[in-house]
Amino acid sequence: MLLVQLGLIGLGKMGFNMRERLRRGGIDVVGFDRNPEVSDVASIDELISRLEAPRAVWVMVPAGIVTDSVVTELGEKLEAGDIIVDGGNSRFTEDQKHAGYLAPKGIAFVDCGVSGGVWGLENGYGLMAGGTSEDIERLMPIFDALRPEGERADSFVHVGDVGAGHYAKMVHNGIEYGMMQSLAEGFELMESKDIIKDVPGTFKAWQKGTVVRSWLLDLLVRALEEDPHFDGIKGYVEDSGEGRWTVEEALAQAVPLPAITASIFARFESRQEDSPAMKAVAALRNQFGGHAVKKA
Amino acid sequence: MLLVQLGLIGLGKMGFNMRERLRRGGIDVVGFDRNPEVSDVASIDELISRLEAPRAVWVMVPAGIVTDSVVTELGEKLEAGDIIVDGGNSRFTEDQKHAGYLAPKGIAFVDCGVSGGVWGLENGYGLMAGGTSEDIERLMPIFDALRPEGERADSFVHVGDVGAGHYAKMVHNGIEYGMMQSLAEGFELMESKDIIKDVPGTFKAWQKGTVVRSWLLDLLVRALEEDPHFDGIKGYVEDSGEGRWTVEEALAQAVPLPAITASIFARFESRQEDSPAMKAVAALRNQFGGHAVKKA
Amino acid sequence: MLLVQLGLIGLGKMGFNMRERLRRGGIDVVGFDRNPEVSDVASIDELISRLEAPRAVWVMVPAGIVTDSVVTELGEKLEAGDIIVDGGNSRFTEDQKHAGYLAPKGIAFVDCGVSGGVWGLENGYGLMAGGTSEDIERLMPIFDALRPEGERADSFVHVGDVGAGHYAKMVHNGIEYGMMQSLAEGFELMESKDIIKDVPGTFKAWQKGTVVRSWLLDLLVRALEEDPHFDGIKGYVEDSGEGRWTVEEALAQAVPLPAITASIFARFESRQEDSPAMKAVAALRNQFGGHAVKKA
Amino acid sequence: MLLVQLGLIGLGKMGFNMRERLRRGGIDVVGFDRNPEVSDVASIDELISRLEAPRAVWVMVPAGIVTDSVVTELGEKLEAGDIIVDGGNSRFTEDQKHAGYLAPKGIAFVDCGVSGGVWGLENGYGLMAGGTSEDIERLMPIFDALRPEGERADSFVHVGDVGAGHYAKMVHNGIEYGMMQSLAEGFELMESKDIIKDVPGTFKAWQKGTVVRSWLLDLLVRALEEDPHFDGIKGYVEDSGEGRWTVEEALAQAVPLPAITASIFARFESRQEDSPAMKAVAALRNQFGGHAVKKA
Repeated sequence: MLLVQLGLIGLGKMGFNMRERLRRGGIDVVGFDRNPEVSDVASIDELISRLEAPRAVWVMVPAGIVTDSVVTELGEKLEAGDIIVDGGNSRFTEDQKHAGYLAPKGIAFVDCGVSGGVWGLENGYGLMAGGTSEDIERLMPIFDALRPEGERADSFVHVGDVGAGHYAKMVHNGIEYGMMQSLAEGFELMESKDIIKDVPGTFKAWQKGTVVRSWLLDLLVRALEEDPHFDGIKGYVEDSGEGRWTVEEALAQAVPLPAITASIFARFESRQEDSPAMKAVAALRNQFGGHAVKKA
Repeated sequence: MLLVQLGLIGLGKMGFNMRERLRRGGIDVVGFDRNPEVSDVASIDELISRLEAPRAVWVMVPAGIVTDSVVTELGEKLEAGDIIVDGGNSRFTEDQKHAGYLAPKGIAFVDCGVSGGVWGLENGYGLMAGGTSEDIERLMPIFDALRPEGERADSFVHVGDVGAGHYAKMVHNGIEYGMMQSLAEGFELMESKDIIKDVPGTFKAWQKGTVVRSWLLDLLVRALEEDPHFDGIKGYVEDSGEGRWTVEEALAQAVPLPAITASIFARFESRQEDSPAMKAVAALRNQFGGHAVKKA
Repeated sequence: MLLVQLGLIGLGKMGFNMRERLRRGGIDVVGFDRNPEVSDVASIDELISRLEAPRAVWVMVPAGIVTDSVVTELGEKLEAGDIIVDGGNSRFTEDQKHAGYLAPKGIAFVDCGVSGGVWGLENGYGLMAGGTSEDIERLMPIFDALRPEGERADSFVHVGDVGAGHYAKMVHNGIEYGMMQSLAEGFELMESKDIIKDVPGTFKAWQKGTVVRSWLLDLLVRALEEDPHFDGIKGYVEDSGEGRWTVEEALAQAVPLPAITASIFARFESRQEDSPAMKAVAALRNQFGGHAVKKA
Repeated sequence: MLLVQLGLIGLGKMGFNMRERLRRGGIDVVGFDRNPEVSDVASIDELISRLEAPRAVWVMVPAGIVTDSVVTELGEKLEAGDIIVDGGNSRFTEDQKHAGYLAPKGIAFVDCGVSGGVWGLENGYGLMAGGTSEDIERLMPIFDALRPEGERADSFVHVGDVGAGHYAKMVHNGIEYGMMQSLAEGFELMESKDIIKDVPGTFKAWQKGTVVRSWLLDLLVRALEEDPHFDGIKGYVEDSGEGRWTVEEALAQAVPLPAITASIFARFESRQEDSPAMKAVAALRNQFGGHAVKKA
């Protein structure tokens, strides 16, 4: 039976927009968030009571401990035949754990990587799902409402069994890190060179016709239009987990990922006030060559 | 005076298509190539005689010694008031040398990075020009015919004085290396993982809605449709010079480019039958730990 | 009470030499190995019965499942007041698990990173221990027999609580990877350059007076004396786990480790027949530029 | 004829100590420096007049423009049969230029990489020479006085023709960069980890018996004894040229040098107040994901 009703838990930056897009796509969504201003219901219990069995509940909360507790609670409160979708950025190993917890209760589990950021409401979301073919088939009206219009295969994929959707999303984000780093390195080199008179204009001119044309390029052009030399912001960059997991998988699979790894280390460096490693190198140069050090 | 007639030297993979696009755009092109089957004229002399002064001659031949000899020859044969455009992949330092050689003769020089590959005929080319505003203004009908339709600023930029166009193209290609490497690393990780059942389908599903959507992704999808695991090709990748120059500039400008540099080193490695460095590491491990080595 | 008797389980490349060095240092060692040709006793039970309480048993077997099963067995067979030392290359997280398993039984646990390879018999071993001060004090006669002569602080350190010894050894090995990679990269560059007429002689001449003088350099000189261009060996390099754990820790601690990570990725590459990532790059270049690919 | 008299130009951190060591070794040295307090003579002319033909003059001044001008001046003032040694850190391509300038005048040229830093006075210097066998033979008493005692082959090598000595020194320094970076990365990881209670003690304990024992490690131990957490110094590291040239050669020779290159990029980063590239990444994350940026 195709599911056209959805419980959605987590109405933050992503979930809030997804509810809106789902509703525009004709899905009957009941949303819950701890913030009562955006929530449709007062509790998870009420959300469950508002859905007709077999229910589908999409979890869109921070990965890790929060997702874990929501899935655990749903496992206690849903019934056999219901289905849970984890659409957050969980590690794929969590999915396998969650599916194993739910299976004895007869509750199905699907993991779904969701890409598109704050633009997804208008553009639609790229989706990567993991689970059984049967479970994914039931959810297809949901997926179709979330993804961009046009050919399904251009924005939705059933990647494999449970965990495969989040694995694909993890790799997607690793690639994203590498692409951003590549654009950023090019930006820095251009900015450093005196003969370059129009850095924002150059990025803008790459938007059509060139090999590097891409959505990230378009976004960089937008950002440069607002602040042509990024004078207003610091070069301080967080990382959300998926980049690190990508490198952990590289290690586990013995796959060399030098560019993606470089992009993660660059973020680590961006957050350091000073580099302990470079202190050690400065101290060493002083020791053997008498090179002066800068005092802290 | 705007130039609507062009001599074009070099009708290879790029020049041949550019002639066609220019003609579709209403430019009167006289093309010369050493290959008589594609050439419009028998010689550079004939090409020059077919153009009305002030002439514009676009050089689209391999960077380095070939470009150098064509520019030298044109310097000897053109007249004051004429203009030469180097549209090849020359190093920006060559441009400054060429402009210096031509200036006393009254011949103008513009460098123009051209991106778009074999698709440029249909899509138009991204263009990055270096030179004086006056020279670039004269060439604008040529540039407009080559670039994609739509806003000029989305596909054409006057980057700065002579050399700046090729500098921007060099950085563009450095970014291109890094983006390709990022996609390729993600591909390899996906291929290595048993739970991933549909690698080509996953890349295909990233084409709409995701953060990594890009022309390079579209091309990777095309390639995977032809050969889903690249069984038919070797992981052997040439590099054309611009990637190396990008890193040389990184060194000259003291700009860290770890991801782009990683992409170039990966190409070097791809061309090695065996790695002398790794032989040394294997020998070392044998020396201190008695770890077995593989015999060559 | 200082311990001058030791049970030693695992008499492989490392353990065999350690038993000999311990005996030369006056320690009464009872060794057990599954290989009866090198074993002093027929079983772990016999080993235990040969030791006077409070006993010390040093485990020197492969990290992971083997160490785990030996520690488990010892936990079942030893008595309160006894002490187990894990001198293998275990991950530091294993130590914490093992100590937790043994604590309720009153059996103490110390982890000890051991460096020195096959040369340790003659030179002595560098030792990094983790555990309580009391436990480490009891073991000091053992440590003193294993380490090189001279100042204790030059070859032995109490790094911290349980796990800290193996953590330090893990980092030591990460540094070792980076140093080997650095030497190996220099070797490859020298080998590639026609003006360099004596690569082995150059490395040999670095042994005294230079900044890079080191034991690894000495070993490289030895290896080059045997095979001046490493013609006889393949550039194929295994990795044992500690390098990977070092990078995993870099990710967990948000510490950038670009050189050490590069050395691990280089090993992964060394073991690949062909690179899937480079196939993808070759395919991409063919797609946009019409560049020829090499057929597999 | 063996040369036992030497003119030495440049009495800075290196040259000053070298003069002293040469004199202790029985060489008759006439030193010149622009600083009259350390100079033996008032001018290069006086230096030349104090030497008996055939003269040997060792140039020990900053690489680049200073070395260039000294060699040029010597070329004008010395005579056929004399010999110039460039012992500074010149790029190997400079040597070939200098030899070509001097050859028509009958003045010989030898390049000599010198390693050992401020410790060379007591320990002796590691030497790597480039030039003809005949020229190098004549200089052997000089080399023998400079290098450590013991086997000549352990601290001196004739690497090849002119330029080869500095090439070897360049690679030596590249390796040195990589080794320092490896030690420094390990230091930072140890410093970051709460379970490690004695970082300086751990490095100290690696000095004997371990695989990483090396002179650089000894120096790091010294530095940590003075300042156990490097609280007093900034992580700001210059680079002198040879590291960059090593990477330039890697590009020219298509040799992958990921670890050495990482060590140079780390130095570039260490000197940046803020990273333009990371500003761009922060701006991109804000654009697609609404992630907050830090204000500059």
